[in-house]
Amino acid sequence: MPKISKKGQQMPESPIRKLVPLAEAAKKRGTKVYHLNIGQPDIKTPEVALNAVKNADIEVLEYSHSAGFESYRNKLAAYYQKQGLPVNTEDIIITTGGSEALMFAMGSTMDQGDEIIIPEPFYANYNGFSTASGVKVVPVISGIETGFALPPIADFEKLITDKTKAILICNPGNPTGYLYSKEELSQLASLVKKHDLFLIADEVYREFAYDGYQHFSVMNEPEIAENAIMIDSVSKRFSMCGARIGCVVSKNKDFMAAAMKFAQARLSPPTYAQIASEAALDTPQSYFDDVITEYKDRRDTLVHALNAIEGVTVANPKGAFYCIAKLPVENADDFAKWLLESFDLNGETVMLAPASGFYSTPNVGLDEVRLAYVLKKEDLITSARIIEAALKVYKK
Amino acid sequence: MPKISKKGQQMPESPIRKLVPLAEAAKKRGTKVYHLNIGQPDIKTPEVALNAVKNADIEVLEYSHSAGFESYRNKLAAYYQKQGLPVNTEDIIITTGGSEALMFAMGSTMDQGDEIIIPEPFYANYNGFSTASGVKVVPVISGIETGFALPPIADFEKLITDKTKAILICNPGNPTGYLYSKEELSQLASLVKKHDLFLIADEVYREFAYDGYQHFSVMNEPEIAENAIMIDSVSKRFSMCGARIGCVVSKNKDFMAAAMKFAQARLSPPTYAQIASEAALDTPQSYFDDVITEYKDRRDTLVHALNAIEGVTVANPKGAFYCIAKLPVENADDFAKWLLESFDLNGETVMLAPASGFYSTPNVGLDEVRLAYVLKKEDLITSARIIEAALKVYKK
Repeated sequence: MPKISKKGQQMPESPIRKLVPLAEAAKKRGTKVYHLNIGQPDIKTPEVALNAVKNADIEVLEYSHSAGFESYRNKLAAYYQKQGLPVNTEDIIITTGGSEALMFAMGSTMDQGDEIIIPEPFYANYNGFSTASGVKVVPVISGIETGFALPPIADFEKLITDKTKAILICNPGNPTGYLYSKEELSQLASLVKKHDLFLIADEVYREFAYDGYQHFSVMNEPEIAENAIMIDSVSKRFSMCGARIGCVVSKNKDFMAAAMKFAQARLSPPTYAQIASEAALDTPQSYFDDVITEYKDRRDTLVHALNAIEGVTVANPKGAFYCIAKLPVENADDFAKWLLESFDLNGETVMLAPASGFYSTPNVGLDEVRLAYVLKKEDLITSARIIEAALKVYKK
Repeated sequence: MPKISKKGQQMPESPIRKLVPLAEAAKKRGTKVYHLNIGQPDIKTPEVALNAVKNADIEVLEYSHSAGFESYRNKLAAYYQKQGLPVNTEDIIITTGGSEALMFAMGSTMDQGDEIIIPEPFYANYNGFSTASGVKVVPVISGIETGFALPPIADFEKLITDKTKAILICNPGNPTGYLYSKEELSQLASLVKKHDLFLIADEVYREFAYDGYQHFSVMNEPEIAENAIMIDSVSKRFSMCGARIGCVVSKNKDFMAAAMKFAQARLSPPTYAQIASEAALDTPQSYFDDVITEYKDRRDTLVHALNAIEGVTVANPKGAFYCIAKLPVENADDFAKWLLESFDLNGETVMLAPASGFYSTPNVGLDEVRLAYVLKKEDLITSARIIEAALKVYKK
């Protein structure tokens, strides 16, 4: 019998999905489960995007250009320019989700055995893309005590070897909600410039910044134009996760030429989803204002309710729609399982994502969970009440 | 300045696309270009698929299951079963095109430095996926003199090392149009069974078999259920290249578990395209009958017209919609360029795909071109006339 690859064995399982069978069993028992574990927003997709697909006049559903519709890239460049980012049409390749953009970025910058430094906790699928690309993740720990701020640059420098090819950040951060400051980005810029590294910035939550904080993009650092690679996606911005449209953006011509060869091999990004994504750029500002207000309210509601629970600490997120909470438990994996298997409050329980899956270093963040505030406020309040009640009886 | 990866440098450029700028320049000069170089059918997409998307009632365009809609997988399993293939829902993962299915298959079966044997000429993007996966392509030559039949099994056995993990075939073949016989598949089955290899079969042109020849699937060889991996796609079957929906199919549980981890890392295949693809399974048989009749007529038209040209030999394709023609030229690359740069017949010329790009062995197939018969008959006749006239004056 043929054997699967080492890579296939080593590919990590999603830390979010491993509890899914327990949640399904709980639902079968009649327990209502509030999903704080996933980043699937309940926000409606802009009508202008949905209508564009409904009204598309297609006779032959053809391949598009491998870099995506030219009309879409033009409009997207204009969108970035309006945000103050110096991005032109030729700096953009449309991808199948931010996921593919990350795969193209890793494949174009790193070979088997090369290393990428990533502040942890980080988006768990970075592990999967790294394994698939044969790349080694070198984590640098950021902690809840600093609110997951950028670790000291000295911590990065200690980890740089001749195998190090890139630093990857998520800004604002999933799972932390941390928004890097202009100073932090400048520090990273100096670092990658000094060591000739790529700086890959996953900015898919760019619009989700609260309390008047401003998002600073890696594309806003002109002195690292050759080092900077931006990853973007329509998934969260327009609540279009199922479209599977993202893009990879860079001013580095060699990088773009390499990424384009990866893009050509897979022919083209999905046509329907490009129609929706191009039209989505016409979404009125009021949509975003409403969405940001809603998320800010949800954040305030959840963070307030969690902080009111004895022994729980939350790093107040400045962006995205996740937060990390430190719980008064030894093992949040076990607690999350127990919530689904053995607990309910009036027939209801919650599903949490244990944060250990977002760390690459073993035995770090064992008492932390990630919560996504993608549910309406009443449900977030109920969820916090369930967690509070659960903590009172768990292992007591 | 940071450097791109070796992989990024080595990624091959598409042999089909490298002539595109010359074709664009020809069009700018006012020359009409007949595209015999690409496999983008002009056949209309089934209305049932297009209407399903138009009528979809979507409020939030959500992620789907990482393996694709369960409803789609169920219906697809039924479709395969109707074709006599023992495929169940759990044997299927829906992918973003056949391209992603190939990437999952390679990633799950091979590590950096492993080898995959592929009869050449082969679909050029196999090179790209192999480079992206760090895998070495070991070609085994099939020739126009046998009509691109399966090379002798002894030729394969000579190439098998402890690094060999899989054999990849395309059936019916792009670029050859060759359809493997039941005997040829049995021979391959014995070979992979003997050496514990995976047999990956790209069967995206399955329905396109002519002259009463029957397609034999790798899934129809029960003794290699653990070795067989089928790659499929809706692109050609339903003229839905832009959907970007395919699937990877196998009865090997370890393989499917590994492939599923790759699928989870990229979250899900595109939602709109899945709606179209699921509905496409309701396409009436009359659609396929018409399409097959049309392609058979086109094939007969093109092959007849080419064979009538002095010095041209065509391997008569039994399936798919490509053929390889041997031309009375030393270098078909040069001839293809010259056709776009320096030739026209009454203001018209043709774009051909030089076959050298479909061979991995250097200096093989230099006098061959691939032609896709995806144009209507009148255009194919005109194209053959242009080629005939061009050969009369080329380098004379």
